[in-house]
Amino acid sequence: MNSLATQWQSIAQQAKDSAELMRTLSTEQKNNALQYLAQELDSQRQFILEQNKVDLDNAKQKQLSPALIDRLSLDQNKIDQMIASIRQVIELPDPVGEITGMNYRPSGIQVGKMRSPLGVIAIIYESRPNVTIEASILCFKSGNACILRGGSEAIHSNIAIYCCIEKSLEKASLSKHSIQLLENTDRSLIAMMTQSPEYIDVIIPRGGEALIKAVSNNTQIPVIKHLHGVCHVYIDQFADIEMAEKIAVNAKTRRYGVCNAMETLLVDTNVAQKILPILAKRYQEKKVRLIGCEKTCQIIDAEVATEEDWRTEYLEAILSIKVTENIESAISHINHYGSAHSDAIVTKDINRAQKFLKEVDSSSVLINASTAFADGFEYGLGAEIGISTNKIHARGPVGLEGLTNQKYIVLGQGEIRS
Amino acid sequence: MNSLATQWQSIAQQAKDSAELMRTLSTEQKNNALQYLAQELDSQRQFILEQNKVDLDNAKQKQLSPALIDRLSLDQNKIDQMIASIRQVIELPDPVGEITGMNYRPSGIQVGKMRSPLGVIAIIYESRPNVTIEASILCFKSGNACILRGGSEAIHSNIAIYCCIEKSLEKASLSKHSIQLLENTDRSLIAMMTQSPEYIDVIIPRGGEALIKAVSNNTQIPVIKHLHGVCHVYIDQFADIEMAEKIAVNAKTRRYGVCNAMETLLVDTNVAQKILPILAKRYQEKKVRLIGCEKTCQIIDAEVATEEDWRTEYLEAILSIKVTENIESAISHINHYGSAHSDAIVTKDINRAQKFLKEVDSSSVLINASTAFADGFEYGLGAEIGISTNKIHARGPVGLEGLTNQKYIVLGQGEIRS
Repeated sequence: MNSLATQWQSIAQQAKDSAELMRTLSTEQKNNALQYLAQELDSQRQFILEQNKVDLDNAKQKQLSPALIDRLSLDQNKIDQMIASIRQVIELPDPVGEITGMNYRPSGIQVGKMRSPLGVIAIIYESRPNVTIEASILCFKSGNACILRGGSEAIHSNIAIYCCIEKSLEKASLSKHSIQLLENTDRSLIAMMTQSPEYIDVIIPRGGEALIKAVSNNTQIPVIKHLHGVCHVYIDQFADIEMAEKIAVNAKTRRYGVCNAMETLLVDTNVAQKILPILAKRYQEKKVRLIGCEKTCQIIDAEVATEEDWRTEYLEAILSIKVTENIESAISHINHYGSAHSDAIVTKDINRAQKFLKEVDSSSVLINASTAFADGFEYGLGAEIGISTNKIHARGPVGLEGLTNQKYIVLGQGEIRS
Repeated sequence: MNSLATQWQSIAQQAKDSAELMRTLSTEQKNNALQYLAQELDSQRQFILEQNKVDLDNAKQKQLSPALIDRLSLDQNKIDQMIASIRQVIELPDPVGEITGMNYRPSGIQVGKMRSPLGVIAIIYESRPNVTIEASILCFKSGNACILRGGSEAIHSNIAIYCCIEKSLEKASLSKHSIQLLENTDRSLIAMMTQSPEYIDVIIPRGGEALIKAVSNNTQIPVIKHLHGVCHVYIDQFADIEMAEKIAVNAKTRRYGVCNAMETLLVDTNVAQKILPILAKRYQEKKVRLIGCEKTCQIIDAEVATEEDWRTEYLEAILSIKVTENIESAISHINHYGSAHSDAIVTKDINRAQKFLKEVDSSSVLINASTAFADGFEYGLGAEIGISTNKIHARGPVGLEGLTNQKYIVLGQGEIRS
């Protein structure tokens, strides 16, 4: 075994051992450590910003993209936000140990479910150093051990933040191995991680599609992944036109680069003549490039859409528009071309709203609200470790509950089975 | 593309299209089809048994093992059981559409969760033709389309049963593609199935470890799998001795070949002297071969256990016994050597019971009850499609709920995000 493999083995084993200890912690013990962490971050601001500057200087020297440098850079405000999110996670109820649905069975036993930590969670992320805090505190409060693998471009910032984590765990008399940061950013450690199902229970890659595919195509370990965000707003024939306008503009133009931004607008053929010109004007004001189906192009000025457009997550000021025959064809379009992320309908008709809710197979389905609400904070999760587009386990914004599972528990009084 | 690939493509596409229709069905529509299926099976008993005889004759000619022939054979009684399980699934509440946790958020939107079908489920199973019915009715009632791939040794029986399924779907005016049976048992179809994440949402292999590993090591599709059942009973120092005896005997000797049978008995050192001789006598009467740790061998007559024994699912009249220092070492043994299946404690002490519940990371954790209760029927699920030893999504017996997921739903009144 080479030295890197030995190193990985030891990290993985320590995580596994820590996961056992994490299960035994009380809510108070976990909250105490989080309190210490908030204090520690506050007192180490100077050091963290200095170390972040090293990363930033390196990034500039390597001529990394301005977008990446933006994600990489920390300031007092971002440290305030990290501290605020720790305080928020302290306030969130502890999901571990929640018992639900205990019922007596004819045999005399009582059966229900108890919520438990998943075990060891590996987080693989890029540039943003605040993920080091966000991921740590969510995994920790939900009773999991975690192994963090941040990008090499952020390593000085990450180590500085991790020093605070290590100190706060020590202050709380807890194992520092409950949260571990890979200080070595050698890529072969990622390969070892993905090949260690005996140690790692779940992998959460946070980053671009290339990273997510590289991880999930090479592992038997469950991956909580967030692939695309091809989100739709469907304006039904019974929509309130003013509401539809407001939502369609907000969903597209609030922020272009986010996963919950609308990428395709679907408009019922019965209202298309009326609403499309209004919307086209609004989008033109915001300089949104419009791409449309044949019918759309007959009504407003737009480029002709190709099949590929319906599957595209533009993440910029581009919108594809399709006129649909009816609600069925709108739902079918969403289920066929969408990415099971977040999709909304605007309608005054309750039957259509119910139909849309039931039949659209997305992790968030919204009625008369902007897709921009599909977010852990807006949903009341306090924080999110990502948005899952998986079909099993957690879907949509993943908070504390998504980092736990449910086991069956049985309470008996000596029952045996005949 | 060869003809088999073309065939698979068409089956997979039909399943995917059917899954969309399945989402739209009402509970009544699904129950009607299930009623027809019960009637159809009842009227086709003769035909099914004849076709089963063809499989049995082939199996005998090929000198397949008596155990396999036993699993393969149908009789009136087994058909009665299939019909009974259909009637039972009709009675179960429809999990689809269940809405939970709707709460208002400060923004004005109301957020909660709705239960939905997973989509297309592939079931790969061996010999037992009754799985054709069990799997079909659970997938169907939970709103999923399914593709069934049974063993070649049971193909005549499976086709006969599938004829009833097809007829009942037709009678109910539903697509016959909502349940499909692969009549071609060429193994390369399994390979195509596991390589079709764009069509298949979940794979459930039901069979031996070789089958489960072959499937799960070769796919990126989530697999709901049931690996081993290395189940434990821990007799705590504060156990009721009579109750402990009753449970330890039942958990081991009720049936040897089942996954929820106890394979390792853990006994607290403070009661070992007292209870082990009593138990040894009971096990000797049942001709159970005893294998023990050093301390066990000092107290009763047993063979010396190797490290391997603690990980072994004997599935026969063999039991390994270990004397543990305390409850902590018992829990640690279970989490280390167990298979996260079903583990029980016998104790009168509530604090220890709570500790065991919280800290044992198994899909079923039992207090003062035999591990033999870890079963879908005993838990009130009506039926089970398998027992999951996964860490994410469904754990333990998987019934209708385990074949669904939860999406976020948002009800607004025109809210936009600032």
